[in-house]
Amino acid sequence: MPVFTAKQLKNLSVGVFKAAGASDYEAEVVSQHLVNANLAGHDSHGVIRISPYVSMIKVGYKPYGYVSKIVPGAQIEIVNETETTALMDGHWGFGQVIAGKAMELAIEKAKRHGVGAVGVFHCNHIGRLGEYSMMAVKEDLIGLAVCNSGRLVAPFGGIERVLSTNPIAVAIPAGKERDFLLDMATSVHAEGKVRVWQSRGEKLPDGWIIDKEGAPSNDPEDLYAGGAILPMGGDVGYKGFGLAMIVDILGGALTGHGCTSGKEYIGGNGTFMMAIRIDCFMDLDKFKERVDELVRNVKNSRKARGVDEILIPGEPEENTREERLKKGILVSDKTWEEIKETAKGLGVSAEELAK
Amino acid sequence: MPVFTAKQLKNLSVGVFKAAGASDYEAEVVSQHLVNANLAGHDSHGVIRISPYVSMIKVGYKPYGYVSKIVPGAQIEIVNETETTALMDGHWGFGQVIAGKAMELAIEKAKRHGVGAVGVFHCNHIGRLGEYSMMAVKEDLIGLAVCNSGRLVAPFGGIERVLSTNPIAVAIPAGKERDFLLDMATSVHAEGKVRVWQSRGEKLPDGWIIDKEGAPSNDPEDLYAGGAILPMGGDVGYKGFGLAMIVDILGGALTGHGCTSGKEYIGGNGTFMMAIRIDCFMDLDKFKERVDELVRNVKNSRKARGVDEILIPGEPEENTREERLKKGILVSDKTWEEIKETAKGLGVSAEELAK
Repeated sequence: MPVFTAKQLKNLSVGVFKAAGASDYEAEVVSQHLVNANLAGHDSHGVIRISPYVSMIKVGYKPYGYVSKIVPGAQIEIVNETETTALMDGHWGFGQVIAGKAMELAIEKAKRHGVGAVGVFHCNHIGRLGEYSMMAVKEDLIGLAVCNSGRLVAPFGGIERVLSTNPIAVAIPAGKERDFLLDMATSVHAEGKVRVWQSRGEKLPDGWIIDKEGAPSNDPEDLYAGGAILPMGGDVGYKGFGLAMIVDILGGALTGHGCTSGKEYIGGNGTFMMAIRIDCFMDLDKFKERVDELVRNVKNSRKARGVDEILIPGEPEENTREERLKKGILVSDKTWEEIKETAKGLGVSAEELAK
Repeated sequence: MPVFTAKQLKNLSVGVFKAAGASDYEAEVVSQHLVNANLAGHDSHGVIRISPYVSMIKVGYKPYGYVSKIVPGAQIEIVNETETTALMDGHWGFGQVIAGKAMELAIEKAKRHGVGAVGVFHCNHIGRLGEYSMMAVKEDLIGLAVCNSGRLVAPFGGIERVLSTNPIAVAIPAGKERDFLLDMATSVHAEGKVRVWQSRGEKLPDGWIIDKEGAPSNDPEDLYAGGAILPMGGDVGYKGFGLAMIVDILGGALTGHGCTSGKEYIGGNGTFMMAIRIDCFMDLDKFKERVDELVRNVKNSRKARGVDEILIPGEPEENTREERLKKGILVSDKTWEEIKETAKGLGVSAEELAK
């Protein structure tokens, strides 16, 4: 399996997207986002997406039965706006470009008016959600991002795919400690995790999925044969289910993108973002001191047997990032072959671009 | 066990609190809140609290080692305010009064400016969280409320009480369907649930608590002997843990009430509330139609074996409310005896007040 530096992968990605018709700006934003996901260890949202995205530009892509297309150069339109809120029509451009603009606007509104909330519709796959919440943290704000997507998850008590994995990402700045970032699916796991188990040929742990008849299953293939992922929580799965409904409503109903199960939904991510200005409530340094104190109280508390360190949300990703910046990013042979093929189809050479 | 109408319980509660020094307004607000909790089936947050609250007025109360006092007549002070945000010092008045004022202010700000966010510190027990989120729904807004409290929950990977059960309540208005209300602890369960099992003399299901050495336990007594409740999620308990940290930071760090494990924390609920105006984003009727569509898609989807009906968050409470409005509210003998004793100590008769 080839290993690349972040810079090499970024150059590769920029070159391919430009050859596929993306503007310099679009290629830059999308590529930086994908490489950041690889650096964080979330390879399912990294350069593995280059080929599917190119295919979405060229012919459309049918992951869940919808034909999603990416429109390079799409103009983002603000269709509703107040001091604190905005609704954006992404016109089916690159998701990362649209969602990035949405969080930039939420941040601007929060800085001026204390809170900013922006909804987005007609938006393709926005990638790793936590990236957007962290944009707010870089400006010393609290950041929230949620989005819906295609049908994968059963309601609590149900056996049919009605919801998506509907993730929530909240980021909070710390002082001396690392910034906090919770970026989680409201289902037991994201679909990518099942795929990892599938690719390893391993059985899934109990409680992740059901088969198409609703029976508990440990076989990843059962998900792809019409089964469903369960909401997180196990016996109290009504909690994960409830959170998933909130995400679907904020991302789908409030924006007009459509809820996952709704007749308007035709693919992509209905997205809702928010930024909150801390110093409207509290002196920023005082706030950060308290966050640091909490982080230390958690990390220094007594550990369960076999646990060396209690990790704060965001820490595993930060650790991986530091490691991959040093040692490089491993790309699977399958992904590398796909990217080479995609590049060739666009008349460019992946090997040359990744030099 | 005696059965009362909601009106009888309300009169009883108002009479006792007034005898204990509460103003007419305070007695009214707190009593309505307690009775609403009983109606919703959350008896742990209902009139069972009358005696402890009176004792918090008279001598202070030490549920978690802190001496919490309720100060009747405390003046709520806004110490920081912008168009969209406010920070309130509750000066240790009745929690329900302070939190109610906070949500009223968040609603007012949301109506004027799209979003309103209010933090509260020096605040006693605010009762059932969902009540406040529902205040926003009654004004056709989306409502969010979170609060921290005393140490009860271990971090994921830890065995020591560092966090509280840190609940989240989100309410969303529907059209023809019932309004949505998710009101959940971020731990597997709230402490009250363990107490219910304890009072029945039953063993707890797996995965709820650990004993003081960190070993899994099914014995409710182990919680009260220094054990801890686990964060929700089981194998993915880092999700419940992450949500709990967010609640602690919003309720404790942003407000100055102090995080549960922090040196500033001395009891009560550090609280954060938010209201969002839907029609800044989307035509209100269109939004409600989409929520209705989602609710129907969920409820009409295929059910797991043994499940008659998929319940939307908030539905069990609505069902109980309808039933208890008809059949009355059962109060346990123990609680009734306690209230009678408390009333007597204040020179009033519970039997007379509840007529």
